[in-house]
Amino acid sequence: MSALSVASVLAGRIPLDEVVTLKGWVRTRRDSKAGFSFLAVSDGSCFDNVQIVAPNTLANYTTEVLQLTTGCAVACTGKLVRSQGKGQAIEMQADAVEVIGWVEHPDTYPVSPKQHTFEYLREVAHLRPRTNTFGAVTRVRHALAMAAHQFFHDNGFFWIHTPIVTASDAEGAGAMFRVSTLDIANLPKTGDGRIDFSKDFFGKPTFLTVSGQLNVETYCLALSKVYTFGPTFRAEQSFTPRHLAEFWMIEPEIAFADLSADADLAEAFLKHLFRSLLDSRQDDMKFFAERIDKDCITRLEKFVESSFERITYTDAVKLLEQSGRKFEFPVKWGLDLQAEHERYITEHIGRPVVVMNYPKDIKAFYMRLNDDEKTVAAMDVLAPGIGEIIGGSQREDRLDVLDQRLDAQHLDKNAYSWYRDLRRYGSVPHAGFGLGFERTIQYATGMANIRDVIPFPRSPGNADF
Amino acid sequence: MSALSVASVLAGRIPLDEVVTLKGWVRTRRDSKAGFSFLAVSDGSCFDNVQIVAPNTLANYTTEVLQLTTGCAVACTGKLVRSQGKGQAIEMQADAVEVIGWVEHPDTYPVSPKQHTFEYLREVAHLRPRTNTFGAVTRVRHALAMAAHQFFHDNGFFWIHTPIVTASDAEGAGAMFRVSTLDIANLPKTGDGRIDFSKDFFGKPTFLTVSGQLNVETYCLALSKVYTFGPTFRAEQSFTPRHLAEFWMIEPEIAFADLSADADLAEAFLKHLFRSLLDSRQDDMKFFAERIDKDCITRLEKFVESSFERITYTDAVKLLEQSGRKFEFPVKWGLDLQAEHERYITEHIGRPVVVMNYPKDIKAFYMRLNDDEKTVAAMDVLAPGIGEIIGGSQREDRLDVLDQRLDAQHLDKNAYSWYRDLRRYGSVPHAGFGLGFERTIQYATGMANIRDVIPFPRSPGNADF
Repeated sequence: MSALSVASVLAGRIPLDEVVTLKGWVRTRRDSKAGFSFLAVSDGSCFDNVQIVAPNTLANYTTEVLQLTTGCAVACTGKLVRSQGKGQAIEMQADAVEVIGWVEHPDTYPVSPKQHTFEYLREVAHLRPRTNTFGAVTRVRHALAMAAHQFFHDNGFFWIHTPIVTASDAEGAGAMFRVSTLDIANLPKTGDGRIDFSKDFFGKPTFLTVSGQLNVETYCLALSKVYTFGPTFRAEQSFTPRHLAEFWMIEPEIAFADLSADADLAEAFLKHLFRSLLDSRQDDMKFFAERIDKDCITRLEKFVESSFERITYTDAVKLLEQSGRKFEFPVKWGLDLQAEHERYITEHIGRPVVVMNYPKDIKAFYMRLNDDEKTVAAMDVLAPGIGEIIGGSQREDRLDVLDQRLDAQHLDKNAYSWYRDLRRYGSVPHAGFGLGFERTIQYATGMANIRDVIPFPRSPGNADF
Repeated sequence: MSALSVASVLAGRIPLDEVVTLKGWVRTRRDSKAGFSFLAVSDGSCFDNVQIVAPNTLANYTTEVLQLTTGCAVACTGKLVRSQGKGQAIEMQADAVEVIGWVEHPDTYPVSPKQHTFEYLREVAHLRPRTNTFGAVTRVRHALAMAAHQFFHDNGFFWIHTPIVTASDAEGAGAMFRVSTLDIANLPKTGDGRIDFSKDFFGKPTFLTVSGQLNVETYCLALSKVYTFGPTFRAEQSFTPRHLAEFWMIEPEIAFADLSADADLAEAFLKHLFRSLLDSRQDDMKFFAERIDKDCITRLEKFVESSFERITYTDAVKLLEQSGRKFEFPVKWGLDLQAEHERYITEHIGRPVVVMNYPKDIKAFYMRLNDDEKTVAAMDVLAPGIGEIIGGSQREDRLDVLDQRLDAQHLDKNAYSWYRDLRRYGSVPHAGFGLGFERTIQYATGMANIRDVIPFPRSPGNADF
């Protein structure tokens, strides 16, 4: 495997004065009167380009080198030398510049070097990975994903692939996409005229999952520490800068654990993610700080050095009531906290906050009922500058209490028979949380619209590109 | 984070003679006349159980310890000592055994310690992770997944999350699941009575992806080395031991690369996977060798030490024709190789084989046409004992040739406009392959049915459990 990437060259891992070949795409070309052209070439392996110095003595200098435009693919062969110019430590003195791929009609190349709006780039999403911003987003996404896997692996967790197509709707978490192999133009009907789902692929109505949590509990209660990292779906037609129809979620689940252990895990995990990102992607984070959000690095640095505050929901409500602030949404025990409330809490406290023990009536059936019988062992982790970044809970591990909660929420106990079984056989306290992966990238980079941190932006009327 | 797992104890990472607490589930209980009970306790962190020696002097010995059955959850506190018995190096002398969760009706506990068939366990799939086999499968799966990520990360690849819901069908790779938010009982119609997909979530018909390859090429032609690792779907009603409706696939894609580089990558990648598995999961692999497939370890050891043979499809056909074997399916240039043919090839050659350059008419439109204009730069990697384990190709990077191939296969060029764009702007030779993740686990473990290596088995009429 060739290790000769621009990243390895710029990191000084390739000896100088050796003749090597670098392959990539031209970002810019600048011609000097001294008889040289300077090509900035990227292969996407890191943020920075490598500078190629192409002398006018090259046989194809006039016919090809001087015709190069942004996006052309080249293979450059020559010596790596210490650069005399500013802006880079190492450059290549090219003995040959071979053009591998031209750009048709450079004047109308959709991602020419001028500034484009993110809205525009979503319309040419198949080409936007070639831009500085989306290259950086991709590498940051990768770095955070690797950091997540590394954290869990090092701490004895196993990655579980929970089902994407599911017959249950988890927690009534929102609108779902139907998945079906029925002939939609010619639906099979039962005797009484209803659609015959027994003819569907799985013999019943199925949907895209909204969460792997309930499924992953089956593994948690056998392997103790597990996590999911996979796609989840919400069919809500709300294409705000914070919502996606298809997004990736990370959901760890730990056995022999209560809500406090869950909060410990959330804190250790988030700090590891951001510390690892700051270490591994200094190039891209510098770009985000310069061009997107000047606070993004200091925000993460502060985050990883903070110790999280923990307060109860009840105390959070008191804090809001005593704030003297006028909020748009009402503040009252029993109502959910809104983004503006969460923002006030983190600003007031000045570091990440874990709000714990929410009223049972605003939370899902599977969250463990506290002894006060009014609250459940749920938590939200609020981060300064973005609000909720993690939602989690201790799970109800007592069958009788679970059944009461299912009844109270008018859910069908038969549909949860396997979930209830877990409470019959060696049930133990267990807890977990969910982290929206795109939201985490948004927090780390300061990107305003979540559709710009997912590799393939989607919108109603725009699947694929 | 508590690191006190059974794995850490058995690996000798916890000092002896220290008082610690271990939590897990009872696998077996054996009572000695010498006034002790021996509990084998598992927390899923490794294959082996830890032995807990519970003396009859414990206050709850008669009332609880002697009532423990398989599946009960316990917290055991005591000293770790060198074991006098056979079968384990370290055991715990318990000062306390606390029962955390009982098993309701032990006589009918669905995964009692007796031998169950895998068919039966698929019916109680929410409990099967507690068995030896499925615990081992889960840890092997995790080890292979981590090895895959590590290999790509160490070699400068970026993980790309390609779309799950898609409007294109990639390569006509097979039956697809429809994804829709239309009210199926009351479908919107256009003026001429057809279903109005403009009212569907994405404004057109959408499906579950069969491959991320076409999408990931957009990132390959910007970041050079990328890969997918995510779920893919086939709606074929063929529930053989080799087919799944929902499965995970790994698809690397490399720029500035031809078919030979693709084969190099496949060889390095597979060897890394299996070498890493042999190193990291000796406990589980020993179990598979003892109980499932006695050859599984030697097969992998031989695999990682082999250098892959490379032959052309044309030579493979000659080999089969000259074999003197009677095959069920015909052997003739222009026909695809069947499982029996692949098996003969690997047996005859005695190590993994890369078959290259298949007839263009049996391969997808995106595979690069060779200079002979009869074959395309496609490859299959065949592994001894299982047959095809990887399928890959160099991609057609020339727009005019791609267009001819789209026309020849009667595909709509408009639907591929973004894919064709990639050939207009800085097109370069690039290549990639796909590896079915469950099939890889099957190969590594010798498990007969692929539904037993996916965490949640599914079948027609049986989504979820």
